[in-house]
Amino acid sequence: MQHAILLAAAALFSGCAATDPLPSWREGEVKNGIVDFVQRVTDESGPDFVPAGERVATFDNDGTLWSEQPAYFQLLFAIDQVRAMSSDRPEFLDEEPFRSAVEGNLDGVVASGKEGLLELVMASHGNTTTDEFAAIAREWIETARHPTTAKPYTRMVYQPMLELLDYLRAEGFEVFIVSGGGIEFLRVWAEDVYGVPPQNVIGSAIAMTFEWDDGTPILMRQPKIDFIDDGAGKPVAIQRHIGRRPIAAFGNSDGDLEMLQWTAGGDGPRFMALVHHTDGDREWAYDRESHVGRLRWALDEAAEQGWTVVDMARDWETVYAPAKDE
Amino acid sequence: MQHAILLAAAALFSGCAATDPLPSWREGEVKNGIVDFVQRVTDESGPDFVPAGERVATFDNDGTLWSEQPAYFQLLFAIDQVRAMSSDRPEFLDEEPFRSAVEGNLDGVVASGKEGLLELVMASHGNTTTDEFAAIAREWIETARHPTTAKPYTRMVYQPMLELLDYLRAEGFEVFIVSGGGIEFLRVWAEDVYGVPPQNVIGSAIAMTFEWDDGTPILMRQPKIDFIDDGAGKPVAIQRHIGRRPIAAFGNSDGDLEMLQWTAGGDGPRFMALVHHTDGDREWAYDRESHVGRLRWALDEAAEQGWTVVDMARDWETVYAPAKDE
Repeated sequence: MQHAILLAAAALFSGCAATDPLPSWREGEVKNGIVDFVQRVTDESGPDFVPAGERVATFDNDGTLWSEQPAYFQLLFAIDQVRAMSSDRPEFLDEEPFRSAVEGNLDGVVASGKEGLLELVMASHGNTTTDEFAAIAREWIETARHPTTAKPYTRMVYQPMLELLDYLRAEGFEVFIVSGGGIEFLRVWAEDVYGVPPQNVIGSAIAMTFEWDDGTPILMRQPKIDFIDDGAGKPVAIQRHIGRRPIAAFGNSDGDLEMLQWTAGGDGPRFMALVHHTDGDREWAYDRESHVGRLRWALDEAAEQGWTVVDMARDWETVYAPAKDE
Repeated sequence: MQHAILLAAAALFSGCAATDPLPSWREGEVKNGIVDFVQRVTDESGPDFVPAGERVATFDNDGTLWSEQPAYFQLLFAIDQVRAMSSDRPEFLDEEPFRSAVEGNLDGVVASGKEGLLELVMASHGNTTTDEFAAIAREWIETARHPTTAKPYTRMVYQPMLELLDYLRAEGFEVFIVSGGGIEFLRVWAEDVYGVPPQNVIGSAIAMTFEWDDGTPILMRQPKIDFIDDGAGKPVAIQRHIGRRPIAAFGNSDGDLEMLQWTAGGDGPRFMALVHHTDGDREWAYDRESHVGRLRWALDEAAEQGWTVVDMARDWETVYAPAKDE
């Protein structure tokens, strides 16, 4: 009897008010798990209710909200900047990773390791004011095209995740991006593309100083890393910036493990999820052996802890968001 | 409680359109200037319109939203903590500023200078988890009393400024606290008292590390200053945390000068204001010579630039917010 009533109620809902908030997610355990979690924490009369102000959800960006192959898109931006600067900087040809960047040799850049990548980002992103950097990044994001898909990078955001962000916000969640990528690079387009305003973007950062330029106050970006928002840095950044522990967190790589652990460590209902790149046809398929977005420890921990693993090939009806004129 | 106040305010507004949003501000140039600015930036058909998302207002805390005499309240908290710890730490008696703190000698503590104060704060605020520190700070703020007024510290917030925060939020502003005080100390009570949620509180910070304690993830506070949110640090913190330049900023001391300059340096309508402590009867009167909240350069700059100077004695009908049961 109880069951029949529930079925009838479900039928009524599907017939009218209950428009599917996640149309690009295929029916199944993952989609049901998300909707069930949201319903529990928003049900004022239920045992799992969480007041709106405490419904904090954090999202990694690269590989979680948009693609990250063949290399983090911000690295492709940095390479383009170094190439653009190279005519004034002949010394770039004497030294890696600059030489590889100038020559457009992505493998060579990647081979220079994390140190090399940081050098590249600092050389290309430092020594500008915040306003100048934002203008450069905006110009690039509007005009650059992905090397293999030829799409604008902002067309390589995941439609199911855009729906998820909208769904959570509609249900009273405060949504934050917590990215290993550069905070100022992300802020240039995160509001337009994700609806996430600058103050809800957390990321890696280079040092800044307050200075005067001919009577005008400026913030000067220094070629010096101030904070790396990756791994164990993510919970620290979340506490520093938000001051509240998330009740839901979404990532896709080992760099997100501590964010998910910190989220899981709180009291009450929790939702931890990994986007697993399983779709070599529509996107890329990679995990344990990838040099970008490597996923080993976090995948093992997800299995052990019962965290949600989103299987892109199985769970997503659509991968990329359509263009606005499509 | 906050909610009840908002409901009451809403009821008043709906009954009578011209309810004064700033009843504790006396009629005059300062009050008119605030209301005029808000009307201009919210008038969609006017030349000074600013979209809601860009209406960012930043407020210093000590001396701007609550009192700061005879010493910053967080310093009084630190002294109380050091005294509470002193029975286990006999070495405190061998060294300043700890000896003065244990003896309750405020002048001695202050005489140890900025270095001494930082040592005190780190000794009393470090080596706890974030959760433990929040519990200690909450206990103190709920029970401690001010040495001369005998009021709870949260009763020493300025009623006119509470009205201003509410007014700005009602007009679509996003309000942030940007304090030289400790970010985690403020967050414990800022939401209850000011209606400012943790993610809108920016302040000085000590270093944190992500660690494991018997299978539970913790954030451990280190006895090491990570960031001092004062002077030229304020624009840097604003950019890092908010990512948008304020259109309005309120401070009271030279430590707020760069925040006001950075705010003034943007395009379009701007509102920069200093709270000037002129009321020795109802609060304290101090400026150029004070060891706490010294106001010299910023007062001169305000005169030169035409920034607003709030004269507490002249402009405020009420100083402190009444108790909830008064």
